[in-house]
Amino acid sequence: MSKLFFLFIAFLFPIFMLGDNFISNKNLEDGYDMWLRYVKVSNQKLLEEYRDQLSNVILSDDSPIMNSVKKELEMGLNGLLSKTIIFGDKLKEGAVVLGTPKNSFLVASQKFTELSKISGDGYFLKTQKIKGNKVTFIAANTDLGVLYGVFALLRKLQTQQPISNLNVISSPKMELRMVNHWDNIDRSVERGYAGLSLWDWSKLPQHIDKRYVDYARASASIGINAIAINNVNADANFITVEFLEKISVLAEIFRNYGIKIFLSVNYASPVILDNFKTADPMNPTVKKWWIDKVDIIYRKIPDFGGFLVKADSEGQPGPKAYNRNHAEGANMLAEALMPYGGLVLWRAFVYSHTQNDRVREAYDEFVSLDGKFMDNVILQIKNGPLDFMPREPFSPLFGAMPKTNLMIEFQVTQEYLGNANHLLYKAPMFKETLDADTFAKRKASTVAQILEKIVFEYKHSGMTAVINPGTTRNWTGHPFVQSSWYAFGRLAWDYDLASDDIAQEWIKMTFSNNKKVVNTLKEIMNQSVKAAVDYREPLGLTHIGTGSHYGPAPWSKRSRSFHCASKDGLGFDRTSSGSNAVEQYNFPLSSKFEKTKTTPEKYLLWFHHLPWNYKMKSGNNLWEELVTKYYEGVEIVKKMQREFSSLKKEIDINRFNHVSALLEIQLRDAKRWRDSCVLYFQQFSGMPIPEKFEVPEYKLEYYKKIEYKRNDIIIH
Amino acid sequence: MSKLFFLFIAFLFPIFMLGDNFISNKNLEDGYDMWLRYVKVSNQKLLEEYRDQLSNVILSDDSPIMNSVKKELEMGLNGLLSKTIIFGDKLKEGAVVLGTPKNSFLVASQKFTELSKISGDGYFLKTQKIKGNKVTFIAANTDLGVLYGVFALLRKLQTQQPISNLNVISSPKMELRMVNHWDNIDRSVERGYAGLSLWDWSKLPQHIDKRYVDYARASASIGINAIAINNVNADANFITVEFLEKISVLAEIFRNYGIKIFLSVNYASPVILDNFKTADPMNPTVKKWWIDKVDIIYRKIPDFGGFLVKADSEGQPGPKAYNRNHAEGANMLAEALMPYGGLVLWRAFVYSHTQNDRVREAYDEFVSLDGKFMDNVILQIKNGPLDFMPREPFSPLFGAMPKTNLMIEFQVTQEYLGNANHLLYKAPMFKETLDADTFAKRKASTVAQILEKIVFEYKHSGMTAVINPGTTRNWTGHPFVQSSWYAFGRLAWDYDLASDDIAQEWIKMTFSNNKKVVNTLKEIMNQSVKAAVDYREPLGLTHIGTGSHYGPAPWSKRSRSFHCASKDGLGFDRTSSGSNAVEQYNFPLSSKFEKTKTTPEKYLLWFHHLPWNYKMKSGNNLWEELVTKYYEGVEIVKKMQREFSSLKKEIDINRFNHVSALLEIQLRDAKRWRDSCVLYFQQFSGMPIPEKFEVPEYKLEYYKKIEYKRNDIIIH
Repeated sequence: MSKLFFLFIAFLFPIFMLGDNFISNKNLEDGYDMWLRYVKVSNQKLLEEYRDQLSNVILSDDSPIMNSVKKELEMGLNGLLSKTIIFGDKLKEGAVVLGTPKNSFLVASQKFTELSKISGDGYFLKTQKIKGNKVTFIAANTDLGVLYGVFALLRKLQTQQPISNLNVISSPKMELRMVNHWDNIDRSVERGYAGLSLWDWSKLPQHIDKRYVDYARASASIGINAIAINNVNADANFITVEFLEKISVLAEIFRNYGIKIFLSVNYASPVILDNFKTADPMNPTVKKWWIDKVDIIYRKIPDFGGFLVKADSEGQPGPKAYNRNHAEGANMLAEALMPYGGLVLWRAFVYSHTQNDRVREAYDEFVSLDGKFMDNVILQIKNGPLDFMPREPFSPLFGAMPKTNLMIEFQVTQEYLGNANHLLYKAPMFKETLDADTFAKRKASTVAQILEKIVFEYKHSGMTAVINPGTTRNWTGHPFVQSSWYAFGRLAWDYDLASDDIAQEWIKMTFSNNKKVVNTLKEIMNQSVKAAVDYREPLGLTHIGTGSHYGPAPWSKRSRSFHCASKDGLGFDRTSSGSNAVEQYNFPLSSKFEKTKTTPEKYLLWFHHLPWNYKMKSGNNLWEELVTKYYEGVEIVKKMQREFSSLKKEIDINRFNHVSALLEIQLRDAKRWRDSCVLYFQQFSGMPIPEKFEVPEYKLEYYKKIEYKRNDIIIH
Repeated sequence: MSKLFFLFIAFLFPIFMLGDNFISNKNLEDGYDMWLRYVKVSNQKLLEEYRDQLSNVILSDDSPIMNSVKKELEMGLNGLLSKTIIFGDKLKEGAVVLGTPKNSFLVASQKFTELSKISGDGYFLKTQKIKGNKVTFIAANTDLGVLYGVFALLRKLQTQQPISNLNVISSPKMELRMVNHWDNIDRSVERGYAGLSLWDWSKLPQHIDKRYVDYARASASIGINAIAINNVNADANFITVEFLEKISVLAEIFRNYGIKIFLSVNYASPVILDNFKTADPMNPTVKKWWIDKVDIIYRKIPDFGGFLVKADSEGQPGPKAYNRNHAEGANMLAEALMPYGGLVLWRAFVYSHTQNDRVREAYDEFVSLDGKFMDNVILQIKNGPLDFMPREPFSPLFGAMPKTNLMIEFQVTQEYLGNANHLLYKAPMFKETLDADTFAKRKASTVAQILEKIVFEYKHSGMTAVINPGTTRNWTGHPFVQSSWYAFGRLAWDYDLASDDIAQEWIKMTFSNNKKVVNTLKEIMNQSVKAAVDYREPLGLTHIGTGSHYGPAPWSKRSRSFHCASKDGLGFDRTSSGSNAVEQYNFPLSSKFEKTKTTPEKYLLWFHHLPWNYKMKSGNNLWEELVTKYYEGVEIVKKMQREFSSLKKEIDINRFNHVSALLEIQLRDAKRWRDSCVLYFQQFSGMPIPEKFEVPEYKLEYYKKIEYKRNDIIIH
């Protein structure tokens, strides 16, 4: 009896012991862990299976990356299985064996045929019986492949997939899977809405913020292998010896997770840093300057990735000042980098205010240079021909540069899409571009296939995304910005993944495996792009925003030059009767976009200027359709809000309140967009808002007066 | 046997169960909890005693503040005692009874004589036997007093003091215990070195960041009862209806912790916001504008504290433009606030670049206005007559305004003291001013006594500090900035507390009760002011810094105008042969400072210009003494570094590494200060650096070239 009582007490013990870490509300869910949220597996049956199937770990942590493998596995399994994982060399039931044929005798001895099927830093996960014991192998040809395999296994546990009979082979489709930070040297972030830059220069190289490591973990977990740490509007000081000292510390941390550092450079660096009179790429002293500079960089950072360059664009210096073209400009840097295997990522985002259609410019500028760039140059092209609008057709350059390495630049940052205040899941936007057929060479030549190097014979290629994580506790401000970041990485690894599947993964890893949560959030995320486009710029409209890119300003000079609203109608004529930007697309797209009836309605006003009474497929005239879209956009936000509020009991209070508050802001803003645009365009259409729709709350003048300031510093 | 085995397993259970919150390295000690770190009491014997002595809690949470009392107690005791605290009404052994005579029958029925001995929001803690049960009372005349009592009790537990026989009575000595944020509307922070402003305007009023609550808790825990949330260089938009909506959310949170909100206002607000042609305080329309504005504010924030005003100072608008003096300017606002009990805090920090000694100006400007200010105006005076220098004598205004409410303004922010990079504990600096005798009226009239209202008959008074917590995880950047913040609050409550005792409290609450940790950190903190002064501006030197106030620049124009170095000697002559600022002090200080031999050497060059061969008390000449001080400053930093490194095993790895890295930076900077100043002054003294000292690493030219940019954005 007394023994039983004692037993009873012993069992209660864990309930009363809250542990040493019960501290204020610090331990609330705050989004810091993002998708690497290693909480105990909630499905008890699965948890027990996992514990049996992953009983001990066998690996050799004899390299920095294998050390990261060990640490991640330890953290992940300790958390997910809620037990202390044993590392050892005993090959028993439930052992996990990790390694490459080089660092693992067990991997080598199995003579896996999978090893020849994976490319690059691919990996395989395989359940195999050895001497009667069921063993899980995570193996690859490179240490980095093993790390990616570990994240794949942990993902299975986080999303509660069975692992009893694993047989997964996975290789990355893109060579470069990259992110671009637009971080300035003063820790401000261009289009940053989530605090200051992560890189705390004034405390480097001495102080290593733990965020650097967690950032590298998150990046590697989705396959990111390259990062440009600073703004393309580049401060030349980043390549001074003083800063390279600081940067080399970051490079070392990232190296342990298979990530190479690139730097954005200012093309006029020799002028700015060393008082040169010229930065002419043909000038031998300038060439020498860059050769010496590159040498210094590689001494500090032996695996340095290369330079990212925004030249002759929006006021940035470039080769044009010396009558040199972009190829000459890029090749000079490429020559300096070539001996070390470094790359030049040369941005194609150029435009002048003199031309009549910005959308034409990158193509007009670069197509004639095809074949002129060195092998270690990649032309980095934004997904659309304009500038990260809510919706754009793909850039025609993707089908037009068979002899020039290309990579694509997406934007995870919600520059034109509500900054860190609005809920958005961008995977469908990314997919829309990646899956677009360019009609280059043969019919099936999607943007993605070109970037995979299977259409043209590119030497290098890849995908990059502008991201803006900052010092905000949850990294991104709005927790759902994380979902686009996650999706970008997953798509760069494998663009064939479905948006929906990626969303599901992310939700399970970030929030919960609860079915209601998964289905509801998926529903919300899937509607989010349509909402964002419809309440802002439906039917192919663009650039209607304020100078801050946050609020609506259809009345502004820039907006008017893009939407071209008049009594006649609405839209930008890019057909042969207008700027003829349609000619930049390969046949049959060029003729499809030339005609209104064969132009997808989502791009209609991008390519055409149409009268207000133009008949749409729905039977509405253009005005009615436009108004309907604007109202639909707002209705979707209301729906998202309702759906989200149904999760009150299923989502932790902290993130529930946070997202709820942000949805309120989003609804306020969606209405402002809708009302501003509908009231403004009504002046030209002269037609009423159909009676079924609610009347805008205020007059146009009210909306014109709302102030939206720049960047994260938004006042409204 | 099998039962015993089962028992054994049951006991092991807690070890294997790591809990649901084992997540990445998120749970490392990161300083977020500051001194409210409620970890389990490490002393097992004490822990058990505490558990017995605090068995259940009796209180009535029928007001917002009593609700905060309950939440804090729950959080604190659950954490410190590592058990779930039971709330109920059973008066048994170990009960804790909290309340006022109004909200607690038990408190009222005891007829405590203590209640008449405490003033304001004071409290008492008392152990009392009731019906044979030992009970702990935390009682006060106000709910806020009870909250302060709770923090006092938790502090005892955190610092491992016995609580078996409590008998503590404590009342605040200062009326206003205030902090000033220099936060801008765009979330930048003037002299902010710890991230962005805590106030996330673009997400208010919808989103309530949990930091707002934790900030209020930390403030209340040290007795802070007022806060000015925005920069004294004030954006007029803070008092628009739109912003008041946002601010009222903060006000509500702070109200729950007994903290009143003040706003810094722009004196030209009627001009800026409503296109008035004038902001003349005598203009009836202007008066009406402010009366209406104040009315709107009090409708949104019924307990609004009042306005903080920086007028006619460093470019800020003020009454002078209309030929009105400071009293006329302040009284106009005071009249508008009077009906609601609001205050005007009028800053005395004024200077023009035309005068020959800035140190004289505040006194010259304000003394003649004594008695001219309304009863609800307080003149807010910086601790010294210049500007938060590492060391200044107290401002002579403190002894010179018997008929004007005064309050003091300290700076916790390390504007001139290494920003968030250097370790500093400012309590000894605060005490130096507070304990200074002004010789007003009678001999014992210290600055603190004047602020306590026991020297003159002030209506209002208090202490304020400029603080700069921001979005950085640990609030302050350098973890030790927290210690000055903590000490400021404790001294505002009771200026008689010893620096050393406050340091000890803070260390125990923030780091550990381990004796080695306590003694070593205390030693480090106690040396820190001497170090900071000695390697920067010893012997009363001032304003030697760069424009950013971070690095040394004795060669700059401003510096030269303050240190006055020449072949003749060094220092600013403020005696009757110079600017005669000494005359502003009451006798006998005026004559004491007039003469070199009776001037404390720590202020020597503040008051005197002396030849390089002037004989110091040590026997050194001035040059030797100066050099010795500079070298001593650096030696202390080396010592601090050595001492801190001895705690490697006693302090958690995260904070240990952080502080270690920052000490490295501090040593680098201390050497730069020393070498820059010694080499620069040597040009005038013409004397060698004594041989016993190491030779500066670089020539003067090297130090001149180091770039120090503004604010948190420091590059070096």
